[in-house]
Amino acid sequence: MTSHTRRPGTGPRQAERLYRVVLELLREHGFDELAIETVAQRAGVNKTTIYRWWPSKDALVADALIHSELLDLDVPDTGSLRGDLTALVRQVRLLLSGADTAPIATSVFAAAASRPELAGLTRDFFADRLSRERVVFERAIARGDIHPDTDVTLAVDLALGAVWTRVVLRQQDVGEAFDAEVTDLLLAGLTPRT
Amino acid sequence: MTSHTRRPGTGPRQAERLYRVVLELLREHGFDELAIETVAQRAGVNKTTIYRWWPSKDALVADALIHSELLDLDVPDTGSLRGDLTALVRQVRLLLSGADTAPIATSVFAAAASRPELAGLTRDFFADRLSRERVVFERAIARGDIHPDTDVTLAVDLALGAVWTRVVLRQQDVGEAFDAEVTDLLLAGLTPRT
Repeated sequence: MTSHTRRPGTGPRQAERLYRVVLELLREHGFDELAIETVAQRAGVNKTTIYRWWPSKDALVADALIHSELLDLDVPDTGSLRGDLTALVRQVRLLLSGADTAPIATSVFAAAASRPELAGLTRDFFADRLSRERVVFERAIARGDIHPDTDVTLAVDLALGAVWTRVVLRQQDVGEAFDAEVTDLLLAGLTPRT
Repeated sequence: MTSHTRRPGTGPRQAERLYRVVLELLREHGFDELAIETVAQRAGVNKTTIYRWWPSKDALVADALIHSELLDLDVPDTGSLRGDLTALVRQVRLLLSGADTAPIATSVFAAAASRPELAGLTRDFFADRLSRERVVFERAIARGDIHPDTDVTLAVDLALGAVWTRVVLRQQDVGEAFDAEVTDLLLAGLTPRT
């Protein structure tokens, strides 16, 4: 992501090393166990340098997430809304279930539920994702596939939420079939077409 | 809930007092800060008594949740699928945003993402909820409103997930209009009806 400015005074390489270490530690131990002290040691950076630019662990974690490619979503362009939505659902499913990403994504987004400072930054994170996913729906509107007044945020909430509920809350292991099932229900709705 | 047996050896009143204290402490401090020691003190019960019947804090919290009416969902019967779904979405929204319930529900369900023991019990909790919500869809099928092969779990995942995403992940304050919006999109789908 390039839309967020680097903290002043940290060199780009130093910031990137810190972000990488934060993600490593999140993956190994989750958010609750993460300590600035450990980040400083592993990155070979003075703890006071970290605290000069990030007021808290929450702020550092949020910045690491925002700058990370690991949690990035590619915006698909398959030529159809069905194809694009299936690809988006798949990305979210892999993010929330992959061995590399699930411990990071679930522990941070879950922690945000009860941590006001992290919540603000998580909110920005989702807003940024949404602003980039929006183009998928804009293209579908341009093709005449969906109504111009479509509530894009709501549609994304149903799709993303279905994955979160199934994978994180119900703790079920789902495969590719799930991506298509979510997409089909979201496109067609529950009530039969006449 | 009556489907879960009380732990042997604890009197019903003692178990209920413990559950009530657990919920109070969850509401005040969240899951991470909860300690068996504090539960024992406030309930006036010996700590060893608690550990005799619940091997861990996670097991006690899960049981407290399962027995709690606070997190119970009424199964609505409004006469229409639209009415029933709107009522279900409303209940989940109030659960995840109400001052009495949100700190409990979000901190426990969020913690479950990274705690295997709690995850198993949370999974049971959602399975129990789902088995009771299923009747809403069975009635709709009986009325001919939706197809008999409707994937009820998937429909609930989209509805419940939309609330979780908007309220917990995006941290947005939504009102009654949201319940109807989620219901309408889930019933009608994104693509226009011919």
